[in-house]
Amino acid sequence: MEKNYRIAVLPGDGIGTEVMHAAQAVLEAVQPRVGRALALEWLPAGAQHYLDSGVALPETTLRRCESADAILFGAMGLPHVRGADGTEIIPQLDLRMHFDLYAGVRPIRTFRGLPTPLSNPKAEHIDLVLVRESTEGLFYARGRGDVRGDQEVFDTMRITRHGTTRICEFAFRLAARRAERLGRAGRVTNVDKANVFASMAFFRKVFEEVAARHPAVAADSGYVDAMALNLVMKPWTYDVLVTENMFGDILSDLIAALVGGMGMAPSGDIGDRHALFQPAHGTAPDIAGQGKANPTAMLLSAAMMLEWLAERSGDTALADGAALIERAVEQVFATGQVRPMEFGGMHSTADITRAATNALRAA
Amino acid sequence: MEKNYRIAVLPGDGIGTEVMHAAQAVLEAVQPRVGRALALEWLPAGAQHYLDSGVALPETTLRRCESADAILFGAMGLPHVRGADGTEIIPQLDLRMHFDLYAGVRPIRTFRGLPTPLSNPKAEHIDLVLVRESTEGLFYARGRGDVRGDQEVFDTMRITRHGTTRICEFAFRLAARRAERLGRAGRVTNVDKANVFASMAFFRKVFEEVAARHPAVAADSGYVDAMALNLVMKPWTYDVLVTENMFGDILSDLIAALVGGMGMAPSGDIGDRHALFQPAHGTAPDIAGQGKANPTAMLLSAAMMLEWLAERSGDTALADGAALIERAVEQVFATGQVRPMEFGGMHSTADITRAATNALRAA
Ligand SMILES: CC(C)[C@H](C(=O)O)[C@@H](O)C(=O)O
Ligand SMILES: CC(C)[C@H](C(=O)O)[C@@H](O)C(=O)O
Repeated sequence: MEKNYRIAVLPGDGIGTEVMHAAQAVLEAVQPRVGRALALEWLPAGAQHYLDSGVALPETTLRRCESADAILFGAMGLPHVRGADGTEIIPQLDLRMHFDLYAGVRPIRTFRGLPTPLSNPKAEHIDLVLVRESTEGLFYARGRGDVRGDQEVFDTMRITRHGTTRICEFAFRLAARRAERLGRAGRVTNVDKANVFASMAFFRKVFEEVAARHPAVAADSGYVDAMALNLVMKPWTYDVLVTENMFGDILSDLIAALVGGMGMAPSGDIGDRHALFQPAHGTAPDIAGQGKANPTAMLLSAAMMLEWLAERSGDTALADGAALIERAVEQVFATGQVRPMEFGGMHSTADITRAATNALRAA
Repeated sequence: MEKNYRIAVLPGDGIGTEVMHAAQAVLEAVQPRVGRALALEWLPAGAQHYLDSGVALPETTLRRCESADAILFGAMGLPHVRGADGTEIIPQLDLRMHFDLYAGVRPIRTFRGLPTPLSNPKAEHIDLVLVRESTEGLFYARGRGDVRGDQEVFDTMRITRHGTTRICEFAFRLAARRAERLGRAGRVTNVDKANVFASMAFFRKVFEEVAARHPAVAADSGYVDAMALNLVMKPWTYDVLVTENMFGDILSDLIAALVGGMGMAPSGDIGDRHALFQPAHGTAPDIAGQGKANPTAMLLSAAMMLEWLAERSGDTALADGAALIERAVEQVFATGQVRPMEFGGMHSTADITRAATNALRAA
């Protein structure tokens, strides 16, 4: 093996652990194919760990993440595990802040063989990436809520030039890379509420400044309400979306629905020095422990991780690994024979994992 | 004629005036059928009026609205007409505050004969009402943005016990009325982000207190991101939704998409003393003046107005009028022969208006 990479693995709570086993199996199958070794180090963190130890995200786990080449994350949080202000214990939000993972990258696309909830045949061509700013916006308010007795609560959102510039730059660079790969012009659509909020008018202004520096990529803007409608009515017309933290949270789930739900939606939380990859779904306590979870989003997140590592290190073998996983997942569903349970299918986490590793080994 | 009602009419900008003519025609057809007279008083206001006079919402217009039995509103705003902080001139937001119209009532349902963007045949059964809190939440920040040089902007959202209690009470009363009319159990689903924000944890707490006072209506809560997904994947499972101002803005457009877009989505902005009814769409400058606008949302808004006046006054003839309009609209589309342009049809504003008034007269 030429090169080794160390991956910090945070399986977390509920189905997080189950889908992480799937990722591990697929990453093990991919290593010999590309001549690279990935050392996966499983680390404790999460709501259950908080219950057991009083700490959700131990210092040693943070330090191992710090020195790892990338972080692979399952899912964390349990509805009944809450802090003093009534909000949940959510280590993924702490990780975004701690490692300054400002770009929440949430790609979705339709997979042949799996139904979409949309009737228009153009839904086949859905292939878009939502880029969510993940370190400020309304989430700036987290832990800072101004609670005045039992009468009123204020939460403040913050938009900075620095934060907006870097997320918009990220989106334009991504669109340019996609344009090259897909062999067509790139486009970034900014989603805001500039008609009502000063912070959002500022966001749009900065977006337009950044857009002017990227003349090869088309740029436009829409209001978040109209975009929620457009994303249901004509999602196949969009390429890259960029938006504030809270809007990105909502719209990324919306677009995941267009391709069949959270089980198909991978994500990356990417900063300038660190990156974390996780399925967009949560811990799903209702089905945890039953082997029913769809591991696809987790497998695609592992592929995103390899892609990111390849870009960062220049080691193209890892990009080949990412492509192998993507193609294996495509093959699993293409014939219509394997179908996850949330699509009305019968196939368990283990079934889908096995199908993917088989496809990968046969490729 | 037994009774007279005075309606303040604010046609506004762009297609606002065009669809208001449709509403006028239909309301004229309905009056002899129910033995009531509606005096429609057209009043100036809007972005164009702001350009012409320097005032978007003249004092005399406000006073006529104040003394009217109800306000019927077209659409207002033009993208290039903006205030000093870069946000738009939007009189409808001022009206919500001025008349304390705290409940944004946004019903949607599928109409036989018109396609929906969803492939599941259950989409036929979509019939839900989103209740949006319209006087606080993130919109509290409007006009209060804290702009710090060209570097950062803060916008603050406010959730009060008073505001949350009254919007939740409104939602439960509405669900109880719908349950009676539809002959089944009612349900209110609260949409928040209680896992992250103190204000939203407070909103959920107050919702649960109100729910406890309405044991006959089922109550549950979901996070706004998950709900954006659920509303695409299984909208037919919901009845009444209640949510914060900004979330309500986004989700009401999302659900309008499920039944074919804003042209089908009426709305009411309802307070304890006043109420305003308007189509959920905007001024659509791109098609203004061409007679292409779908007047359905405006007609259904006029029906909502009659319904509200009936409830308020106890004059059931007006409820009959509302039902007549609703049934006329249903008939227009049921055979599939009349189809608005945004559904790929050929029918103009005038065509649809004529079909509706004919159906109403023949009923
Ligand atoms: C778990 C939750 C706090 C989180 C968020 O709101 O960011 C999740 O929904 C996401 O989108 O990553
Ligand atoms: C025009 C706009 C400011 C308004 C809002 O955001 O409330 C509209 O989208 C609505 O939903 O009534």
